[in-house]
Amino acid sequence: MRSKAIEALQKQLEKTSHSAYFISNIVEVSYLVPFTGSSAYIIVEKDEIIFITDARYEIQSRDEVKSSNVKIEIITSYTDALKSLEKYKSILIPPTSSLSIYEELRTLNLSVNIDKVDVITQSRLTKESDEIKLIKEQYDISARAFKKSIDNFRFGESERTWAAELAYNIITEGAIGESFDTIVASGHRGALPHGVASDKVIDDAEPVIIDFGSRSTYNSDYTRVVYNGNNSDVLDIIDIVRTALLKAIDAVAVGKNSSDIDKVAREYIDSTGYGNFFNHSLGHGIGLDVHELPYLSKSKSTVLDNNMVFTIEPGIYLPDKFGIRLEETILIRNNQTELLSSHLDHYIYKI
Amino acid sequence: MRSKAIEALQKQLEKTSHSAYFISNIVEVSYLVPFTGSSAYIIVEKDEIIFITDARYEIQSRDEVKSSNVKIEIITSYTDALKSLEKYKSILIPPTSSLSIYEELRTLNLSVNIDKVDVITQSRLTKESDEIKLIKEQYDISARAFKKSIDNFRFGESERTWAAELAYNIITEGAIGESFDTIVASGHRGALPHGVASDKVIDDAEPVIIDFGSRSTYNSDYTRVVYNGNNSDVLDIIDIVRTALLKAIDAVAVGKNSSDIDKVAREYIDSTGYGNFFNHSLGHGIGLDVHELPYLSKSKSTVLDNNMVFTIEPGIYLPDKFGIRLEETILIRNNQTELLSSHLDHYIYKI
Repeated sequence: MRSKAIEALQKQLEKTSHSAYFISNIVEVSYLVPFTGSSAYIIVEKDEIIFITDARYEIQSRDEVKSSNVKIEIITSYTDALKSLEKYKSILIPPTSSLSIYEELRTLNLSVNIDKVDVITQSRLTKESDEIKLIKEQYDISARAFKKSIDNFRFGESERTWAAELAYNIITEGAIGESFDTIVASGHRGALPHGVASDKVIDDAEPVIIDFGSRSTYNSDYTRVVYNGNNSDVLDIIDIVRTALLKAIDAVAVGKNSSDIDKVAREYIDSTGYGNFFNHSLGHGIGLDVHELPYLSKSKSTVLDNNMVFTIEPGIYLPDKFGIRLEETILIRNNQTELLSSHLDHYIYKI
Repeated sequence: MRSKAIEALQKQLEKTSHSAYFISNIVEVSYLVPFTGSSAYIIVEKDEIIFITDARYEIQSRDEVKSSNVKIEIITSYTDALKSLEKYKSILIPPTSSLSIYEELRTLNLSVNIDKVDVITQSRLTKESDEIKLIKEQYDISARAFKKSIDNFRFGESERTWAAELAYNIITEGAIGESFDTIVASGHRGALPHGVASDKVIDDAEPVIIDFGSRSTYNSDYTRVVYNGNNSDVLDIIDIVRTALLKAIDAVAVGKNSSDIDKVAREYIDSTGYGNFFNHSLGHGIGLDVHELPYLSKSKSTVLDNNMVFTIEPGIYLPDKFGIRLEETILIRNNQTELLSSHLDHYIYKI
């Protein structure tokens, strides 16, 4: 059980004079207690935590949610479970709840308020040591999967075949699955920043962007490029993207705004004349979600702090030609920058 | 573009006197226009449809969303895009919008109302012929992937290895990925209805539940059992589950309540004395989401109609012993029941 977050929720209840905090978002449920099923609620009261799930997860929840402070209730109807919240008279819910649950709660004889502070999101922003361990495990699994995969990648195969190879190795190396649909974007398809693997056959003269990650409960996210060629246009772009990446990593420090890190990479790419071709934000936090706070972008900013984990991934995309993106993941710990993605120590792989 | 749904949205605008319908849920966006990216909004006005996305998807959206009736806008800030809705004065949003977007909209100088009729969900409930084609494609891909995989499954391997084999074949056979984390639950793990594949080694005496599916935009979902043994306890349970499945399929008809189909399977399993061990609902609709309307359960009911697609998947789970679940998918068309999952014509496979 994540005691610090639960205490923060209980403090928020006291501060705002509510009798229960109701959590229905399954990712947040799995953050608060170690549960890997797909449906459950948590009610945090002042002195008690109630975990609610259905009979499909009866055995699993007793195995996983075994903290003595958590009361497990097996229910037959989630609608009835919502109805039973009426006894609290006033509840807080996080803004990450679904609109349909919010609307359902509002039909009840109950005052429902959205916690603007969003205690759980705030808590998730800095990782505890067990979370960092689980994230590192995923970076390790993904790196092993990639190394195994590149031994089997052949030019003349489709992007799809490479993606399938990675999916296979991600699972056999120990993850439950991929963090997201693997991107294998070769040649002109590399200019689509988010083009998933297609049936396009990969030519040995093309740079190939491979953006992939593994997930058990926590996620990992790497981008590496396979390039066997020597075209100076491609090598120049690789050099610019790599320099932008290294400058941004260098700029990371506790107390800085995350938008300033985006700015460092963006201004450098602007100075090379390719600013219009770096058309997405620089990075994102990663944890239970593959995209979460802090965002490294112009518009959203977070003051960087110890125990935050986030990607830095500049890219340049030249329509109808090719694209290059490189991605590292940073952990800030003890005021220092640690690379979680260092298991893959090259940016460019030859096969 | 899905014209009938768009027209229904426009009719709803007129009926409720709103000037725009705002869609922010990405699955719903991809339902209305053929877009495969991960961020976009749609605004449906009385006479115009505006598709909004960011620069990452500029090329992709021009390729995919090429209907002449849709105006494409490439934006740099989704927050600004929300702000620009103020010009409409009053908008409708679907109940599937996120609470955070709803709350953000409510801070604007704008009247925001939730469409209780939920036009898009209603529209998605019955599939159009292009959707049925895409769903069938996924059932075909998954079946080919399963047939290839069972040729490589070996006893003495881990559940994880079998799951990885399926993931590989699902992608190489043409899907973008799995519909959900493949369940490979052998022996006593089969009693966990939703236990994903683990490191447990599979013994040749054990029944193995394999629940898997593929996804490109639409999904598929199969459950088959691998069982090489001859234990009469296992064979009896297989027989009961199979009979429940066939009785439920037989009960499907236009005009019936989906809860009545659940009841047919449940009452039969009850009559065998195993009612307490069938601890989940009978089935679910499938389409762009792997779980959607109609639900075949005690508590949620939908009147069955032509062009609905849903699974039927009874199961019996004997704690610490084993579990059996079998799953077929039904399309109702021209008042007849069509099996979409008939590509895998056995329930039980020997390897």
